[in-house]
Amino acid sequence: MTAAQEREIIHAVSVIATKRGGHALSDAQIAWMVDGFTRGEVAPEQMSALLMAVYLRGMDRREIASWTHAMIDSGRRMDLSGLQRDGQTLITVDKHSTGGVGDKITLPLTPIVASFGVAVPQLSGRGLGHTGGTLDKLESIPGWRAEVSTADMLDQLERVGAVICAAGADLAPADRKLYALRDVTGTVESIPLLASSIMSKKIAEGTAALVLDVKTGSGAFLPDEGDARELASTMVELGHDAGVDTRAVITDMSTPLGLAIGNAVEVAESVEVLSGGGPADVVELTLTLAREMLDAAGLVDADPATHLADGRAMDTWRAMIAAQGGDPDAPLPQARHHDTVTASRDGVVTGMNARAVGDAAWRLGGGRSKPGEAVAAEAGVIIHAKPGDRVRAGQPLFTLHTQDEGRIAGARSSLAGATTIESDTAEHAGGAGTRPLIIDRVRFTP
Amino acid sequence: MTAAQEREIIHAVSVIATKRGGHALSDAQIAWMVDGFTRGEVAPEQMSALLMAVYLRGMDRREIASWTHAMIDSGRRMDLSGLQRDGQTLITVDKHSTGGVGDKITLPLTPIVASFGVAVPQLSGRGLGHTGGTLDKLESIPGWRAEVSTADMLDQLERVGAVICAAGADLAPADRKLYALRDVTGTVESIPLLASSIMSKKIAEGTAALVLDVKTGSGAFLPDEGDARELASTMVELGHDAGVDTRAVITDMSTPLGLAIGNAVEVAESVEVLSGGGPADVVELTLTLAREMLDAAGLVDADPATHLADGRAMDTWRAMIAAQGGDPDAPLPQARHHDTVTASRDGVVTGMNARAVGDAAWRLGGGRSKPGEAVAAEAGVIIHAKPGDRVRAGQPLFTLHTQDEGRIAGARSSLAGATTIESDTAEHAGGAGTRPLIIDRVRFTP
Repeated sequence: MTAAQEREIIHAVSVIATKRGGHALSDAQIAWMVDGFTRGEVAPEQMSALLMAVYLRGMDRREIASWTHAMIDSGRRMDLSGLQRDGQTLITVDKHSTGGVGDKITLPLTPIVASFGVAVPQLSGRGLGHTGGTLDKLESIPGWRAEVSTADMLDQLERVGAVICAAGADLAPADRKLYALRDVTGTVESIPLLASSIMSKKIAEGTAALVLDVKTGSGAFLPDEGDARELASTMVELGHDAGVDTRAVITDMSTPLGLAIGNAVEVAESVEVLSGGGPADVVELTLTLAREMLDAAGLVDADPATHLADGRAMDTWRAMIAAQGGDPDAPLPQARHHDTVTASRDGVVTGMNARAVGDAAWRLGGGRSKPGEAVAAEAGVIIHAKPGDRVRAGQPLFTLHTQDEGRIAGARSSLAGATTIESDTAEHAGGAGTRPLIIDRVRFTP
Repeated sequence: MTAAQEREIIHAVSVIATKRGGHALSDAQIAWMVDGFTRGEVAPEQMSALLMAVYLRGMDRREIASWTHAMIDSGRRMDLSGLQRDGQTLITVDKHSTGGVGDKITLPLTPIVASFGVAVPQLSGRGLGHTGGTLDKLESIPGWRAEVSTADMLDQLERVGAVICAAGADLAPADRKLYALRDVTGTVESIPLLASSIMSKKIAEGTAALVLDVKTGSGAFLPDEGDARELASTMVELGHDAGVDTRAVITDMSTPLGLAIGNAVEVAESVEVLSGGGPADVVELTLTLAREMLDAAGLVDADPATHLADGRAMDTWRAMIAAQGGDPDAPLPQARHHDTVTASRDGVVTGMNARAVGDAAWRLGGGRSKPGEAVAAEAGVIIHAKPGDRVRAGQPLFTLHTQDEGRIAGARSSLAGATTIESDTAEHAGGAGTRPLIIDRVRFTP
């Protein structure tokens, strides 16, 4: 060990001890640790000790901003301010969801907003675990490619206005490396670390405005509503401080979104919405987020529902899919094996465990348990009865789709008890007493 | 990554999350993590996240016992119950100090207690940082060897009764590996981790009784007295639960012990004590701990001072040094370079920063900054004025000993301000108002 390496170890311990003692880290300490870890000079075991101290001691607003900017500085920062169409500068607005079961909202939302002449740069990651990934869903469309060069992405934003593609490896690489470490060290669900992880990528991407869909409820990453609110306001502040007009919507994720959970089945449901149909909850959330995005772009009176009705959102969808090699008219892949879960009694559905439904779709082959694993486009779950619906014994609750019959038993065990059915009384009818989908809006308050 | 490796990663995360959430770990979780880490199957970054969670969330009595036994189970457990002399079974009593500046007490204490027919197995580690190491001190005696085989150690205990030697690598190897990780991840000063680290080695060593010298004050590892008391009672409980009669003495470490800080200079001071002289504080602490050890061995009326007066303690010292190849009559190594720090004003010494004096000795070459580094036997500091002493401007406060003249400037800077001198008023005279050396005794209370 050289003297310089020894000094680095001692310095890292002093940074860890600062946070361990409940004190705020200086900007210099944060920059040094994040940079050192990214370059491999701060050992993973030192960074994970700091992450646990951050998890348990927290970070204040300045520290979170500093941590976020240290991650941005680890890579390239994009500039989308020069995008133009017909000689006019394009306004950019992005959206991020903290992830939920059946959350395919990005698919219809991106083309709807873009159809109003706004540029929507949706740079996404891959899904892990029970909530699925947007790119995995889109890859069930024959020919569609998630990998797009920066030049092609900028060109597609200027021509079509909508792009949903894989984020480049040079966008906040520190976040990628930190996330992999947090994943194995029990330090994922920290509000300062979640906020800085999400916002570092969005700020580095260069979007002018950002709408966040922060989920709460049993199927969400942070089930507690107070945690969701804190994450939302932390990210709104972070965005504001970095010059990104950021606002958040707190939405319910105690029940899956829509009736389709999986890959191709969620694309099909998204196309239904773009055709003017689709489940009411998917339409409501899509339009709510679209209005926020259009408002952030200065189009305060635009009504996104009109572009679902007149087909302009669908036109942009088709152009967006085609621009990335996809055939919007090709039939989506269909599963070889199906199975049905039925109701055991008569009554009213009063609850549905979103996480259990997500796990079932994952077990059918729809998700991955580690990075790089392949997912099955055909795998998924179709829901036949949601909270508020009356059912009779023997009536289908779920249809399972899979390429691998051996996966059905595991998925059925995930779904055992996922639906709560109670005797049909007036108080349950029509889903009364369930939480509204849109819980609150969070905007920056100085 | 195999499926089994993946399951291990997920299991480790669940253990980390349990402690992170403030819950108690099960015995199975603790055994699995400690064993997995020792065998290299739990990654250091996962263990360090758990260590930080333990640091900030604590462990209860059962968890600490479980953690200690998991570390004992990582290696060999010795059995000292069969030691005999002249057909009589020997009682074993060991001592451990949490470390302090000038703490050479083990050197006179071990032969004094052994001279009463008790076996004292002092298995020690190497020193790191400002508090020095017992083995490093003894190695300044020409010919003396710290490495002793188990058979030779048992033989020496039966013949001489006293052995001070290096602990074998198979004694709680998990502790060795965990300590190295804690050292670089800011997780050393955790009471449950300190207690289990110390007690795992003492329980594995097989001693029947144990006296702990837990230091408090500015020069101690845990300066706060409440922390020291908690560490003491935690270790006393741990020892009791493992069948080791364990008691603790809380002692002051705000001032260095004795007048010599270093290696050979501390051996010389220990030999003075064994000759019936030596500084009053070293004699007081040695006799206090000796009485506790003899009491634990059932010799409740034995007076250790008599064996200092009649030379029997010195006889045992000479036999102990000779048994490990040392020449008790050989002159100790002398430093080539000396320097003196003098008082800047007249007055009474009212305070001395023990850590500063320890750092000075370390900078002169007496200690190491990383495992395996060589230390200079000749390096050290001699103190000429301690709290309560009157001094005049220009009178010597410290003499520095070193083999390397270039180290003197650094040591002088450590000592700048280490001695507080105030105007000579009645309240300061004779050290009035300073804390007693022996602060309290801690015994097991059911």
